[in-house]
Amino acid sequence: MSYDRSALSSILARTREACRSYAVLTSKKKNEALANVARQLQEMRPLILEANRADTEAALKAGLSPAMCDRLLLTENRFESMLKGLLEVSNLPDPVGTAVSRWENPDGLIIEKIRVPIGLVGVVYEARPNVTIEVASLCFKAGNGAVLKGGKEAMRSNEVLFRAIWEGLAQANVNPEGVAFLPWSDRKVVADLVSDTTLDVVIPRGGQSLMETVVAHARVPVLRHDQGICHVYVSASAPFLMARDIVLDAKTNRPSTCNSMETLLVHEAQAETFARPFLHLLRERGVTVYGCPRTRQIDSSVAPATPESYRMEYLALTMNMRIVSTFDEALDHIARYSSGHTEAIVTSDVEESERFFREVDSSCVMVNASTRLHDGGVFGLGAEVGISTTRVHARGTMGLPELTTTKYMVRGHGHLRGQ
Amino acid sequence: MSYDRSALSSILARTREACRSYAVLTSKKKNEALANVARQLQEMRPLILEANRADTEAALKAGLSPAMCDRLLLTENRFESMLKGLLEVSNLPDPVGTAVSRWENPDGLIIEKIRVPIGLVGVVYEARPNVTIEVASLCFKAGNGAVLKGGKEAMRSNEVLFRAIWEGLAQANVNPEGVAFLPWSDRKVVADLVSDTTLDVVIPRGGQSLMETVVAHARVPVLRHDQGICHVYVSASAPFLMARDIVLDAKTNRPSTCNSMETLLVHEAQAETFARPFLHLLRERGVTVYGCPRTRQIDSSVAPATPESYRMEYLALTMNMRIVSTFDEALDHIARYSSGHTEAIVTSDVEESERFFREVDSSCVMVNASTRLHDGGVFGLGAEVGISTTRVHARGTMGLPELTTTKYMVRGHGHLRGQ
Repeated sequence: MSYDRSALSSILARTREACRSYAVLTSKKKNEALANVARQLQEMRPLILEANRADTEAALKAGLSPAMCDRLLLTENRFESMLKGLLEVSNLPDPVGTAVSRWENPDGLIIEKIRVPIGLVGVVYEARPNVTIEVASLCFKAGNGAVLKGGKEAMRSNEVLFRAIWEGLAQANVNPEGVAFLPWSDRKVVADLVSDTTLDVVIPRGGQSLMETVVAHARVPVLRHDQGICHVYVSASAPFLMARDIVLDAKTNRPSTCNSMETLLVHEAQAETFARPFLHLLRERGVTVYGCPRTRQIDSSVAPATPESYRMEYLALTMNMRIVSTFDEALDHIARYSSGHTEAIVTSDVEESERFFREVDSSCVMVNASTRLHDGGVFGLGAEVGISTTRVHARGTMGLPELTTTKYMVRGHGHLRGQ
Repeated sequence: MSYDRSALSSILARTREACRSYAVLTSKKKNEALANVARQLQEMRPLILEANRADTEAALKAGLSPAMCDRLLLTENRFESMLKGLLEVSNLPDPVGTAVSRWENPDGLIIEKIRVPIGLVGVVYEARPNVTIEVASLCFKAGNGAVLKGGKEAMRSNEVLFRAIWEGLAQANVNPEGVAFLPWSDRKVVADLVSDTTLDVVIPRGGQSLMETVVAHARVPVLRHDQGICHVYVSASAPFLMARDIVLDAKTNRPSTCNSMETLLVHEAQAETFARPFLHLLRERGVTVYGCPRTRQIDSSVAPATPESYRMEYLALTMNMRIVSTFDEALDHIARYSSGHTEAIVTSDVEESERFFREVDSSCVMVNASTRLHDGGVFGLGAEVGISTTRVHARGTMGLPELTTTKYMVRGHGHLRGQ
């Protein structure tokens, strides 16, 4: 289907109109619709897996990287956890209509600040079919319309998944047109989508080039889900075993994720007690290290780190290591190179931990815990829309409440401004 | 001083660097600095008033509208309330460091969500010198750096006001470079400012043409302070006196403000009981009315309302009036023409009031109260940054907390993701 801007505009207009009704659906009705979608997915499982196999084969043939092909693939196991995730979203408490605050002014005006849906949410994401279900269900549960643009390699999978979504909504007598799928693979679609002010907000999830397209063209608010250049600082007072386990977990638990550590900072007092044995361990684990000159004095086989290394999001078993003379030098390094995602300190000094909390300006700051723990599931928030690296609206892991906004509801009995 | 983009870039870079220190100032230090600014303003009062007189005379000569000249003028009274406002900001509770929420996950990880400054805030506003002090003090109190671009007609006033701000901050040993003033009157400055990603957020306050410039060029998040096309609906069950007083207050209390009513909707059951006597009253009060055909049947001297009238923000003693057959027709009219700012219903029917709350999608929805009451001061929030018509981050009247974002602070004792 060849791309045409006017077709995009009419999809957006139709979705906007249809999703007005979502804002006032009861939680019961929304959960019923989500249960129907789950049943439809279950029924259409063979069709979905078949479309997904076709997608994956085409992607392999087209030379997509093995890591990307793997993320595209829906195995039986992943299908199950996709269904499970959908039912989890239906079990999450509905944020819509809950009161953020309520008070009375001196004149007896009763003011409430109530959560309401944002409206129409655009989501641009990679070729990951499970994200289609996750994002569509979260947006719907929060009462929003959604316009989804998934990676082109997942087109066949998404087409079938959307038939299940629409069928499930229709069976609950919910207008299915409030959840829209953009059937084009053209990159120009992204530029046009984010510049159309019919959307209330756009959430891009993906790599650097997607972010650049979005930022260059966006005329609607953007909640970025951006790269993580995360740091762990092993302070002079860090206990060896705790530091070793946290740093290993932060780097090697799942290196392809945005909350993995990319740079390790070590206080010079720990050069012999921590850095030397840890470098040995990293070699054993097959981790490639780029090091500062002092790191290379300990292990001359380490390649030299440059400012470019410190700005790299490796997403692999590769990392930087720098030995610093002072805590301030570590803080300065983080202020200069961090992407503001997640940073951790390992320390037994409470003054240091409090300073780290206060001075490190990242969406999540951790003491004596692995950066990998910055996650909606781990935090107990349920399903996650993404991890926002934007400083407005939502910062860090975003759950269902972050897909809402607020309105003031004010009750008077003839209150006037004059007099 | 002729405009030069590289000079703008270097101001932004310097302000960004300087304001890093604001994030960690104590409340006491911030209040001390604000008190110093108040003292400086007091000392420099003759200079400020002189510069303001020069601005106002030049504006009058240049043919600026009397309403705009009036907003530019700093009288002795307005100077006093500017000082009073500054001290009020210093008395507001500091949002920075306060916990939004705190919980423990099943593994004993302690998670806190803490308010922190947004960072560097750009504000573009009209030629109103009192707004300079209001906005600069609110941004600073919330720990933010600020880059201010005021209307060009207030340039002389703002130059002197900024000398007072800088002197006051410096006396408290606070780096004054975190609060910057853009000394250019070129409109191109706005386009360049909002496209510079050194800013974390930009708040535009002003008319339609400013908003268009901002939306067209913004590459940073925008919190719009946009027009108010506000409605009051007088329902079939509205008591006459309450309806009369609320509608009059909403229209005539201060017609130039964004929370004034522009369109009155009346249920047909009230055509004789409310619309007819009220039209008479409006004529007496010198209010110009554009009306629907049924309004014109009651009063043939009323000019016909068109879709264009319904989209007008008059900001004057002019309004639209439409008689509707049903409550739904009123809701549809609001959904079509409202700018999402503030709407009110006058009713004695609780079912109607609850439906109005639920279905009207505006930043503030009021029952039996005048739209003019949507105001930070009236709500008891203290000074107001503006009324956001954006659907993300903040909606409706914005106070000090809306100038902050959050970060997660997570405490573990060796917590890992693996295992």
